Amino acid sequence: MKMAELSKRSGFSIATIKYYLREGLLEPGERTSVNQAIYSDSHLDRLRLIRALTKTARLSLKTIQQVLNAIDSEPAIVEAMGAAQDALIGQDETDEGELPPTKEELEARATSRKILHELIESRGWQIHPETPALESTISAITSLRDEDLSTVLDQLDAYAEAADTVARIDVLAVASASSRNEVIRGVVLGTIFRRSLLDSLVLLAQQHHAKDQTS
Amino acid sequence: MKMAELSKRSGFSIATIKYYLREGLLEPGERTSVNQAIYSDSHLDRLRLIRALTKTARLSLKTIQQVLNAIDSEPAIVEAMGAAQDALIGQDETDEGELPPTKEELEARATSRKILHELIESRGWQIHPETPALESTISAITSLRDEDLSTVLDQLDAYAEAADTVARIDVLAVASASSRNEVIRGVVLGTIFRRSLLDSLVLLAQQHHAKDQTS
Repeated sequence: MKMAELSKRSGFSIATIKYYLREGLLEPGERTSVNQAIYSDSHLDRLRLIRALTKTARLSLKTIQQVLNAIDSEPAIVEAMGAAQDALIGQDETDEGELPPTKEELEARATSRKILHELIESRGWQIHPETPALESTISAITSLRDEDLSTVLDQLDAYAEAADTVARIDVLAVASASSRNEVIRGVVLGTIFRRSLLDSLVLLAQQHHAKDQTS
Repeated sequence: MKMAELSKRSGFSIATIKYYLREGLLEPGERTSVNQAIYSDSHLDRLRLIRALTKTARLSLKTIQQVLNAIDSEPAIVEAMGAAQDALIGQDETDEGELPPTKEELEARATSRKILHELIESRGWQIHPETPALESTISAITSLRDEDLSTVLDQLDAYAEAADTVARIDVLAVASASSRNEVIRGVVLGTIFRRSLLDSLVLLAQQHHAKDQTS
């Protein structure tokens, strides 16, 4: 397709597409004359992914560049998925602007880390040891311990079982995607939108089960 | 206990506690002399709940007042839980600042509403027809349809099943709380912290299952 059609189908203006071409986020089209090139469906997929990363995930251009580099350079799709995940978590963390941790906070995190490692081992999960998802899980466990919500922590294994189910469905849901860009787009949008879907469904199911509890 | 001890154990300053007393968020203590009163564990529970609603859920004082009113006036605990839930969802929605919906958007929401009602019916969930959780689920389904993430939507029933499991654990986790204020505190903090716990656990489990998929 020509640039005009790529613009129309992707919903990006020609100026924006030219900017992504200059920045190397989008590969050049196949040149047919001095000032004309044709673009394929893979360009469209890439632009749809960029849209997901900018408009929906609201990642910075720098982070998007890192995610796209990872997609293009990692031979294994699982590594590319990991890079996209890491970018989404990193984004969350920067919102907080925390002070450096105190000695007590470090000790509390060490205990949470131990709890998590036992959980991962008992479930047999194979996890990349440097993924930011580990640190964000440790933060969540530490918050629950800080707030003395031990009743929630007692159910940690049951939550992990539910998380396992959700993840299995997530992976299934993107497995049928037609290209690598589409897989990553599925992971990014899936994570963001499925998150609010699941949150809302849980609230609905809570109402239902709270009734059981009190009747 | 005296005011000084209540302050120490709750972590609120005496000035703040006096403010909550004046605003009616906290019941007066039992007066023992003209300028002294004693406070019970129920005062402490209430202050712990207020802390959860202010510091963690970051609700406005007006919203907190509504939640506390609901807790005090609703005879059924399930209705009080509903009020706390509604406040948490309402908070999310105000962040968006949306324009009024177009005709196409209204039609898209009507389709999502139909999808959700079929789901609720097939699961036999008993849901209050005016809960904001319904609207937020419809929004999530509409976003997934807008983004053409039909592979995620195809798994809607599987996600609902997982949400059902999570909600059952949530309700179980707060059922053992010692007072009504503690139950609501469990719901509020549970919803907020369990949400980030579950999100992170899902990311970890995704890594594990993505490996299965590609090997």
